[in-house]
Amino acid sequence: MLSKILKPKSIAVIGASTKPKTIGSELMQRLRDYKFKGNIYPVNPKGGMIEGFQAYTTIEEVPGEVDLAVIVVNAKFVLDTIDQCHKKGIKGLCIITAGFKETGKEGAEVERQLLAKVKEYGMRCVGPNCLGVLNTHPEVSMDATFAESLPVRGDIGFVSQSGALGGGILNILKDLNVGFSQFVSIGNQADVNAETALEYWENDDDVKQILLYMESIQNPSNFRKLATRISKKKPIVALKAGRSAAGASAASSHTGSLAGADKAANALLGQSGVIREYSLKNLFATAKVFSNCPIPKGDRVAIITNSGGPGIMATDAICEYGLQIAKIKDETKEKLRSFLPSAASVKNPIDMIASAPIEHYKQTLETVIADDNVDMVMVIYLPFLGLKDIDVARAVMEIKAKNPSKPVIGVFMTKSEFFSQLSDMDVNTPFFMYAEEAAEGLHRLNQQRIWQNRPEGKVPNFSVDRAKAESIIKQSILENRAQLTTRESIDVLDAYGIRVCKSGFATNIDEVVELGNSIGYPVVMKMTSKTTSHKTDVGGVRVNIQSEAQLRNEYNDLIEKLTEKGLIEGLEGVIIQEMVKGNREMVCGIATDPQYGPMMMFGLGGVFIEVMKDVTFRIAPLSDIDALEMIKSVKAYKLLEGARGTKPAQIEQIQETLLRLSQLVSDYPFIDELDINPLLISESTGEGIAVDGRIKVRLEEALDKLNCSCACCNGCCH
Amino acid sequence: MLSKILKPKSIAVIGASTKPKTIGSELMQRLRDYKFKGNIYPVNPKGGMIEGFQAYTTIEEVPGEVDLAVIVVNAKFVLDTIDQCHKKGIKGLCIITAGFKETGKEGAEVERQLLAKVKEYGMRCVGPNCLGVLNTHPEVSMDATFAESLPVRGDIGFVSQSGALGGGILNILKDLNVGFSQFVSIGNQADVNAETALEYWENDDDVKQILLYMESIQNPSNFRKLATRISKKKPIVALKAGRSAAGASAASSHTGSLAGADKAANALLGQSGVIREYSLKNLFATAKVFSNCPIPKGDRVAIITNSGGPGIMATDAICEYGLQIAKIKDETKEKLRSFLPSAASVKNPIDMIASAPIEHYKQTLETVIADDNVDMVMVIYLPFLGLKDIDVARAVMEIKAKNPSKPVIGVFMTKSEFFSQLSDMDVNTPFFMYAEEAAEGLHRLNQQRIWQNRPEGKVPNFSVDRAKAESIIKQSILENRAQLTTRESIDVLDAYGIRVCKSGFATNIDEVVELGNSIGYPVVMKMTSKTTSHKTDVGGVRVNIQSEAQLRNEYNDLIEKLTEKGLIEGLEGVIIQEMVKGNREMVCGIATDPQYGPMMMFGLGGVFIEVMKDVTFRIAPLSDIDALEMIKSVKAYKLLEGARGTKPAQIEQIQETLLRLSQLVSDYPFIDELDINPLLISESTGEGIAVDGRIKVRLEEALDKLNCSCACCNGCCH
Repeated sequence: MLSKILKPKSIAVIGASTKPKTIGSELMQRLRDYKFKGNIYPVNPKGGMIEGFQAYTTIEEVPGEVDLAVIVVNAKFVLDTIDQCHKKGIKGLCIITAGFKETGKEGAEVERQLLAKVKEYGMRCVGPNCLGVLNTHPEVSMDATFAESLPVRGDIGFVSQSGALGGGILNILKDLNVGFSQFVSIGNQADVNAETALEYWENDDDVKQILLYMESIQNPSNFRKLATRISKKKPIVALKAGRSAAGASAASSHTGSLAGADKAANALLGQSGVIREYSLKNLFATAKVFSNCPIPKGDRVAIITNSGGPGIMATDAICEYGLQIAKIKDETKEKLRSFLPSAASVKNPIDMIASAPIEHYKQTLETVIADDNVDMVMVIYLPFLGLKDIDVARAVMEIKAKNPSKPVIGVFMTKSEFFSQLSDMDVNTPFFMYAEEAAEGLHRLNQQRIWQNRPEGKVPNFSVDRAKAESIIKQSILENRAQLTTRESIDVLDAYGIRVCKSGFATNIDEVVELGNSIGYPVVMKMTSKTTSHKTDVGGVRVNIQSEAQLRNEYNDLIEKLTEKGLIEGLEGVIIQEMVKGNREMVCGIATDPQYGPMMMFGLGGVFIEVMKDVTFRIAPLSDIDALEMIKSVKAYKLLEGARGTKPAQIEQIQETLLRLSQLVSDYPFIDELDINPLLISESTGEGIAVDGRIKVRLEEALDKLNCSCACCNGCCH
Repeated sequence: MLSKILKPKSIAVIGASTKPKTIGSELMQRLRDYKFKGNIYPVNPKGGMIEGFQAYTTIEEVPGEVDLAVIVVNAKFVLDTIDQCHKKGIKGLCIITAGFKETGKEGAEVERQLLAKVKEYGMRCVGPNCLGVLNTHPEVSMDATFAESLPVRGDIGFVSQSGALGGGILNILKDLNVGFSQFVSIGNQADVNAETALEYWENDDDVKQILLYMESIQNPSNFRKLATRISKKKPIVALKAGRSAAGASAASSHTGSLAGADKAANALLGQSGVIREYSLKNLFATAKVFSNCPIPKGDRVAIITNSGGPGIMATDAICEYGLQIAKIKDETKEKLRSFLPSAASVKNPIDMIASAPIEHYKQTLETVIADDNVDMVMVIYLPFLGLKDIDVARAVMEIKAKNPSKPVIGVFMTKSEFFSQLSDMDVNTPFFMYAEEAAEGLHRLNQQRIWQNRPEGKVPNFSVDRAKAESIIKQSILENRAQLTTRESIDVLDAYGIRVCKSGFATNIDEVVELGNSIGYPVVMKMTSKTTSHKTDVGGVRVNIQSEAQLRNEYNDLIEKLTEKGLIEGLEGVIIQEMVKGNREMVCGIATDPQYGPMMMFGLGGVFIEVMKDVTFRIAPLSDIDALEMIKSVKAYKLLEGARGTKPAQIEQIQETLLRLSQLVSDYPFIDELDINPLLISESTGEGIAVDGRIKVRLEEALDKLNCSCACCNGCCH
């Protein structure tokens, strides 16, 4: 798939140059300096020698077979170059040249043509407008980029959407001694994108974790499918830029891509098991941790320190990430006491005191790692007279090497020289300057542990009355109404087996009374109208009707008021509803993100919805696990659990409500908005009951989907 | 005050040593190497020469006058040494020796004696158990520490509570090229503490900002007074460790100090204008920014970049801190267009594109700084072929030097060598590796701007019926009840002019009916009892009583029920209350932190109080500004403003309620708990009305304060 690009046996650099400080020259130098294992063929109309390699005036002239063509010629020559590559039988392209989609309409058109050629010729193409590709595997040894530094060998597969940023990143990674296996700068991602790389790396053992820098996600549902599967095998860590509205607008003018709404992106990444970072700094720190630590068995952390202050700060940071401060076993404490001075504290954080010699670091670490109550260890060192930081680090790494099954992270609050020294060494432990950084790393390890242990989850398929739902929606569409009436909305929910409150529809006083008597008092009466959507504003909702007599009065009064206001025309009738008692109002529904598709929402409803914003989002369709996580992730979950003596809500029934909604929106993807507000928690049964509902569709799309022209159509032909 | 210690003309090092890697030797080397401007007198029983200085066998033998004695002798000799120092007429001590309060009871007793001597002799003393003191002013040039590195000269005054951590910090600061003016390691802070240093530095022009590392605040109210005043003149930035319960417990076993509850600490720092950081990394980053930037005039940020990706990330980070993305003026855009290439974007973030030469950096920065719509500038550089990072930095600094009035921060995503190079240069601009770090810096500058512009605020003194309140409280105390009854609580609030709902107390059916009729229906009836505090549990609250007849029924029913349950004994009577309509329930009250004293709370009440935790805290007494900030800082403020068509609440009246509560607790500091829950917002008037109240006092303290033995006592003698 991508092997012609990422593991080529021969590379042609089309646009190679002898002119210093040009991309065509820098790229040739990198290929040469990093000692690419295959053949290198510079192509330049002038021929001659370039960086010690024989240059050819055209690609056709190249004597051997070419796997990968790296293209750095001017944008206007790129289409012809692709044709020439095709003639030469090349299947892998990496187009570094800029001047396409990112420059506007014309460029986008050329990029469209470029992609058409790539598809037609059966090629794969990285770029255009990118930094290049890298593979550090000794059998490949390819640096086909124009970054400043040569890469460090490691286990990361890295995809970067921004070219220039990619270069910056390579520099920094070199500095941090974070090494990678393969790197793809996808640029405008005309063909190859993050998903292509994910899929390619899924079974590549040389890539043990995947890092992504993204400004947009091209195909969210495909990304979700791949990421959900692959993140169970190896960590995927992503920095998704363009979170703020302003940032997203900056993103849309950049690399020609549209940044998706951040809420949707956040939901998508979370439910796909992708660890989301919010800064490059944290992205790299996490990569460093995954490169050097196994996934822990639990979340209990032991802290070993030679100074109290950093021990406190470490404890603060660890607790803030929700990790546990490990309870050191008594026998471990005893062992520690046997060699540590009396002023030392053997309770976690274990403070060996400032004068702790290297031997104490070794013994303490070894003793603590052996404790079954400890899943991860943070080792802190502050400079003390006579001790060399690098020697302490060596001691830590020595013990770590003997005990590879538990994560150990070092916090060395020392000079930056120490970190430079490390970057020239073979390390097996991540070291940071500050406890907070190390705590974040432990948190990420734990997050990956939780994700890997998370059950897969199923998207259930409920048996529902699809025909009924469909005929209701069709009716609305035929009448050209994007917004279904309350009655229609509730009936659609009912058809999908969602617990709506008992109700019926009446158009005259006799029907009204009959319904009231059959449902049982107290009841609620709500008008339904094709012209008035905000019922309360016109007195269209009457609650707590206690008897037949009161029901008659209220109905007559409503008719009178609507007549006075000239609104009687639109009145379809009234809904008579059981009156559900409960003061816990939740909300659930569906919003559609233009890029990510239908997105489910759940949270605290009522007047608090806007103020508290205690809601959570997931991309549909939901698995059972997704639905349960949604419910448990809002603060109001405590209310559902039965805070302050209220009846616990039926969590499973609410979960099912969300899953049925998810099925509904999957069946009718043209549903644009759907709100159940409130989903009232019944005080007597704990059920979540849809008391009010609103459904809105995208008319054109719905017409297209539901109203085919054949005579037989009753949901049969789609 | 501290000048004998921080600006000494002569120093005796008692315990100076020739033995390598001892504190007594290291300290002598630092003093020598940093070229202390005064006389250095090592004291060691063996005499001889130490690090090139003549040593004396006792302090009395020293020929000249001694301002500061740095003491590093064994703990058991320290008390005698202080006596000897006194004989020599020394007024400044810095006791580095450990082995006092931090080791337990015995050590604490010795430390008590130590302090007694210091007081008796009119000395000031830094330590014990500390790292030492520093002053980089060229006329002093004192490094009396045993840290690894010699200090960098700068403008920071720095207080560190942890000794070892202080050493780590000095190393790192050296590395970051963050320089300071003076440094005090307070250790066990027996005498000199953070407050002493704050006060000393208030008018010292060599100290332009104050940095604190604290594990505890010794005298919160004094700290508040000083910090509030001094932070208006120079930034105070603090790292307060021991946030988590576990961290606080680690802190209390360290440096012998008790960590205060973090909520109180957070409130105290916030209302005193202290910028709180949560990691050393951020503490130093902020210091670097304050050292190199003026306080801006506003919060509008321009971003200049040569790469889109970091521009997006910068925008995200800036927005997340609540800063504004500056709107670049049209004339500025035109100017930029006149020299930038057409592919560049002149809209903020200003993307000069990857190939931007140094000249573009200069011109763009100069043009953008001149724009009146811009208050601060972030300049981003990503490596590009042919450009040297340090040259770009020089260009930025050149323009910065010409335009000193607006903050400029650089983001250079380049090799760490760049930062090492900077640390050997004279810089006028803070440079960071990542946009997020720079954004935090801009945020801190803006925070300081807002604080400096914040009005001082007044603690008003309302005229209240103190005699009434006092007699109610006294009655409860005399009956040995820590918890006042509801009636008493409400009456105390009423006496302090807090709007409580109209009510009266009745003990029989006739009084009940009379009250109901005079208040007007609907009313609420609540029992008051000396034995039952949770009224609702026993059916003691009856709401929405519509008529005299209903009132009679409810009262009779209550008496019956209580008799059945055997609770009639404790019944004092019932409160008949106006029924206030409103569905916005707030809460306000007072909790007492053992270390920080009375702390005010305000926020969303009702069932949401525990679930949403939408409450805020401030240490009492409150200024009018504090009270208003409390109200505006909770999410529920939107409800008060009148979200979703409700009547806006009377913010000033609620503010006054908080201020009157603050006065109440200042008048009676033995009030341990006070809750107004709910403070119901009246739907008709928007007033906040105390519908229910609970007051609890600390009995012994209250007895002590209120019940003096003199016969005349009616609030006259305290």
